[in-house]
Amino acid sequence: MLLNKRIFLTLFFLTFSKILAAQSEVESNIQNLFQKSLTEGKSYEWLDHLSNKIGGRLSGSLNSQRAIEWSKNELNNLGLDKVYLQPVMVPKWIRGTFEYANIETSPGNTINVPVCALGGSISTPLGGLRANVIEVKSFNELSRRKNEVNGKIVFFNRPMRANFVNTFDAYSEAVNQRTQGAEIAAKLGAVGVIVRSLNLKLDDQPHTGTMSYGNLPLSKRIPAASISTNGAELLSSMLSLNKNLKFYLKQNCKNLPEVKSFNVIGEIKGTKYPEEIMVVGAHLDSWDLGDGAHDDGAGVVQSMEVPRLLKKINYKPKRTLRIVLFINEENGQRGAIKYNEESKAKNENHVFAIESDAGGFSPRGFSIDSNDEKFKIIEKWSIYFKPYLIHYFEKGGSGADISFLKSKNNVLVGLRPDSQRYFEYHHSENDVFSSINKRELELGAASIASLIYLVDYFKL
Amino acid sequence: MLLNKRIFLTLFFLTFSKILAAQSEVESNIQNLFQKSLTEGKSYEWLDHLSNKIGGRLSGSLNSQRAIEWSKNELNNLGLDKVYLQPVMVPKWIRGTFEYANIETSPGNTINVPVCALGGSISTPLGGLRANVIEVKSFNELSRRKNEVNGKIVFFNRPMRANFVNTFDAYSEAVNQRTQGAEIAAKLGAVGVIVRSLNLKLDDQPHTGTMSYGNLPLSKRIPAASISTNGAELLSSMLSLNKNLKFYLKQNCKNLPEVKSFNVIGEIKGTKYPEEIMVVGAHLDSWDLGDGAHDDGAGVVQSMEVPRLLKKINYKPKRTLRIVLFINEENGQRGAIKYNEESKAKNENHVFAIESDAGGFSPRGFSIDSNDEKFKIIEKWSIYFKPYLIHYFEKGGSGADISFLKSKNNVLVGLRPDSQRYFEYHHSENDVFSSINKRELELGAASIASLIYLVDYFKL
Repeated sequence: MLLNKRIFLTLFFLTFSKILAAQSEVESNIQNLFQKSLTEGKSYEWLDHLSNKIGGRLSGSLNSQRAIEWSKNELNNLGLDKVYLQPVMVPKWIRGTFEYANIETSPGNTINVPVCALGGSISTPLGGLRANVIEVKSFNELSRRKNEVNGKIVFFNRPMRANFVNTFDAYSEAVNQRTQGAEIAAKLGAVGVIVRSLNLKLDDQPHTGTMSYGNLPLSKRIPAASISTNGAELLSSMLSLNKNLKFYLKQNCKNLPEVKSFNVIGEIKGTKYPEEIMVVGAHLDSWDLGDGAHDDGAGVVQSMEVPRLLKKINYKPKRTLRIVLFINEENGQRGAIKYNEESKAKNENHVFAIESDAGGFSPRGFSIDSNDEKFKIIEKWSIYFKPYLIHYFEKGGSGADISFLKSKNNVLVGLRPDSQRYFEYHHSENDVFSSINKRELELGAASIASLIYLVDYFKL
Repeated sequence: MLLNKRIFLTLFFLTFSKILAAQSEVESNIQNLFQKSLTEGKSYEWLDHLSNKIGGRLSGSLNSQRAIEWSKNELNNLGLDKVYLQPVMVPKWIRGTFEYANIETSPGNTINVPVCALGGSISTPLGGLRANVIEVKSFNELSRRKNEVNGKIVFFNRPMRANFVNTFDAYSEAVNQRTQGAEIAAKLGAVGVIVRSLNLKLDDQPHTGTMSYGNLPLSKRIPAASISTNGAELLSSMLSLNKNLKFYLKQNCKNLPEVKSFNVIGEIKGTKYPEEIMVVGAHLDSWDLGDGAHDDGAGVVQSMEVPRLLKKINYKPKRTLRIVLFINEENGQRGAIKYNEESKAKNENHVFAIESDAGGFSPRGFSIDSNDEKFKIIEKWSIYFKPYLIHYFEKGGSGADISFLKSKNNVLVGLRPDSQRYFEYHHSENDVFSSINKRELELGAASIASLIYLVDYFKL
């Protein structure tokens, strides 16, 4: 792209007029929040630390405890009115020291394929598991073919559909293979499950994520692993040539007793309506394969940036602003449940909550869970966001952690970044700091801060 | 991100209702264009070839000729009514075999810094150029300090400003250092110029790009190179410690005589108004450092995809659809000038033109160069794009190549993808295929095809 003179001049004057335009107090404060985030932001530096100096932080791990201590200290450094830890018991699952799989196409001929244990899975026998495979696309198909399942590994191979524009819709449609596949297959006599990674791209990274055995007793549980999308394509293609091939899986992951962990909470007390609480939340835990930069390191540092940015523009919230870094979103949501329980016990009034848990990409807008009246108010605020290319204001879900706070009159919001790249990284070794763009992260932080400012300034 | 049940169900029904919703013909055709692009698109495969099998394709190079032959063949394979080459003479500049620089902080102590020659620059003397440095932020500063310039290397070090939301605005504000810096510095007696790379990120890649000596005679021209942003920071910091340090630059790039090249043009003749031409354009040439995946391989394959997608949905345009792959956008715009000249000579009527030359990222909308009446028509069509998260419909420039086609009544449009990451790649070794996301590229192609469909269906 070369900019010819006409374009250059057009852009120059557009820019100039934008900067000089007379502005309302609200417009000017929001502009300041964006400018400060882009020029004096701390979110990127924080995320560098959380990702590279701490790393993956699965609930109950030493790293999760390090992340708790670090984020508490950083919130303290911001000079908030109160920073504290909220104790909560969390599940502890460890990946173990090996995970390995191959396809035995004929006796002695094997091809290695990339796999990883699903979070919560039991280990295979020490010598591994070797069995025939039945490939299915859905629970319906599995049910129809239930007579073929006994003694086999069930291979769930329904891809995320490319024709959804929002990739989270494709995820929703495919995720039950991972979450419920093992339970359903075990009940039909399967000895293990292999699930196609929830990734729209064909590559070699297996993607982990939580799974559940439902009410299956320990003795009935079977090992569950994820296979990379390329691995799934290969296995499927091999099965079409030889349905009697064997699949070999070996993993020594393990569920350990629950351990004590913490939500990290920081608070600025409201100057006028301290009993009205606005929550900005994200989850501090992550999966263990990458460093959790997008899921949900980005949301953590964006949340931490909100009080910092409001202080930078000298705005003192009238309502209480509470930053909540939830623990254990990925495999139990214990942090969210605990926060909600304690909040209900104290009869707290959460008027608003926003969660950032969809990656650190360019913010596109907000998904809003509220009654019509309040939705319309927020929708009208979209004009304030237009200069920052934030256009999406739609009804929809908010975030897994804050959804527990739902009441008849409050408003829950999810930040909605561009979703196209998210599932390339999600729950895999690809989810690392180098895939984060500084400006995209900063624009997200400013978007959240601006919405909090509007909620506080205008009331909802 | 774990999807809890409430979110899952919400998303599921949203999705379901989206798919089943009764649709108008227009809505249904646009949905088809997006679905086909995402599920049966060819743009990504084409770009893989153009980037990885051909590579960087600077005007006049063998690779540019290979790209011309390849794209002509591919357009032919689409079964268009006419595919042809339009000859045009283009400048030929070659980078040469070395480019090297260091900072000599004290005699014998040197630090290497990453540099690359600017496109069009002359070489240094064979043994290199060694001189003191004067650092400036602007032409005004240079002019004020003109007495200090003689015999020195001028170091233009005005960074792109982070506080523009659209990174192209930041580019516009900084690019004159690269395009005019050498001419202005040479007139003041400088012996060379070093320009800070036009990159918002601090990294080690130098970014090239076109520069001009204006009307300077050959004997007065001085070598011009770009330094990486980290290199610029280092040089600036060293200068603050020792303003008498020396900078050493060595490069053997060269301007050669002009050579013959071609625009590649493919056409579907309009069924009803064949004399009304709609152009979909991009530029086939690229800089030589990367493989030109974003600039402008993405635009090339998106343009090629437009007739293919329209055929897929069995839509025959009433107006003539012309795909124009312009040559030499980067360092001369000869292709665009030639196309416009020949078109004017034939008295052709270009009613509409759209260019994709801002990277292969998630499409955000369109920048529209037209009169108010036609702008308002297009603005109303934005409702058709909302399901695809395309929200940006604003007046503004279109594209460097098609801007020559401007007339009183026609409409010129630039596709506007998300701009946050673009200048990390632009004109550097980072601009390679691996930085392209398949879905983002495909959504861009579908956006262009949909706008062309609307222009043809409704008339503008």
